[in-house]
Formats: sequence, C-alpha cells, structure tokens
Amino acid sequence: MGTVVVGYVPKPEGEAALTAAIAEAKLRSSSLVVVNSHRGGESFDAEKSAKAEAELDAVRKQVEASGVEFEVRQLVRGFEPAEDLIGIAESVGAELIVIGLRRRTPVGKLILGSNAQRILLDAHCPVLAVKSD
Amino acid sequence: MGTVVVGYVPKPEGEAALTAAIAEAKLRSSSLVVVNSHRGGESFDAEKSAKAEAELDAVRKQVEASGVEFEVRQLVRGFEPAEDLIGIAESVGAELIVIGLRRRTPVGKLILGSNAQRILLDAHCPVLAVKSD
Repeated sequence: MGTVVVGYVPKPEGEAALTAAIAEAKLRSSSLVVVNSHRGGESFDAEKSAKAEAELDAVRKQVEASGVEFEVRQLVRGFEPAEDLIGIAESVGAELIVIGLRRRTPVGKLILGSNAQRILLDAHCPVLAVKSD
Repeated sequence: MGTVVVGYVPKPEGEAALTAAIAEAKLRSSSLVVVNSHRGGESFDAEKSAKAEAELDAVRKQVEASGVEFEVRQLVRGFEPAEDLIGIAESVGAELIVIGLRRRTPVGKLILGSNAQRILLDAHCPVLAVKSD
C-alpha cells in the first residue's frame, strides 16, 4: 500500500491540501499521513496548544469519514515545516506529497513561499500543489 | 471524462512529466493533452522543426502504447510556455496539470524556473510537479 503525505495547517490552503490529499489517497488506494508542524517555544502556550488539538480532532473526523487509512503526526519543534514534511515523506516512502499554496491577503494574490519552494525542490517524490478556492 | 494536461519538452524533466502524466491519466480514467511549446522565430529553422516533429512522434508512440486517450498540441509562437499551458488547461477544463522541474547542470541542483513558478501560481487546477531521476 502506498502512502500520500500532506502538510496540514488550519488555514484555507491547508484545508484545500487535506481535501485533495484525501481524494488522492482514495484514488490510489493509499494510506494518508497528515503532518502538522508548529514552531514551539514561548509563543506556543496552553491555549494555543488546546486550539491546535481541537483543529486536529476536526481533521481526524474528516479523514475518518472518507474511509481512508490514516495517521496524524503533530510536530512541535524547531525545524522548518518543509524539513518535517520532506523527512516524513522519505521515511514512509511516500508516493506523493500534497501541499497548499497560500494566498497573500488582502488582495488574494498567490505567492510561492519558501516552504513550498523547498518542498517542491527537495522532495524525493512528486508534489501536488493545490490552491484554496 | 476528465483531462490531464502535461507540459512536454524533449529533456529529462519533460520525459519525467510525460511518464507521470500518463500514469495520472490512467489512474483517473482521464484523457491526456500533451502541450509542446516552442518559441518560433529565426532560430527555429527547418532542421529544428524536423527534429521537434520526430520527438513528438516518439511522444505519440509512448502515449499510444499506454492506451490513454490523448492529443498532442504543438505551439510555435511568441507566448511563454507557461501561458500556453495554463490557457489550454483552462480551455479543456483540466483537472490536473503535470510539469517537470528542471535540474541545473552540471551539479544537478534543482531550480524553480519562472515558467514552473508561473504555472504553480496561475493555474486554475492542481499542479503535479515531478523531477527526473
């Protein structure tokens, strides 16, 4: 069974990536690894931690409803999210990474952030880039 | 029936994109549109034109062997390849665009060229980015 890895953040681009990744995992009869990376440190207090946990509960419910086999990996540490995603994708032998491209508010213009660029360039497998509506 | 659109150039990244696009079209039971853009002008002489035609014949044979329904669109004109690809993807209501990321010789380091960036940001559908081996 193959594995699709998706980078999830509780933002429109993260939701778009998750929805696309669930569809891709179903299509390929693959399992899904949802990766959620936070920078830790002082700014990540108990309240934020509880909020993050609630968001991931919603993610679990969404993937469960799809019938796709999955796991969620929440990483709170000093690495850049790109490194986490690439490292996990490599360790599970991912066939595909799904990422969301973020829109720069308020005009909604898209930018290719450094994390997205890094994943596109450094990932060892194909990368599917999606946008929020 | 959905449509997958792939940007093809007769280089390792183009071959990687074509191979991935054929697999994606099969997986999705979609048809495939292979887009090959050239800048025209004086540097595109009869010899180069014949070479390009021979390359596209090889592409046709490869896709035919896969059993995927397809068409090849060769564009020789002044637009940037990114514009051609995005325009065609939009006109056929593509569900997916596949592009190859090129390696900068001689060290093989990858770069995100302006065409790739443009397609990733401006495409109206998900973009699958693949690399040559």
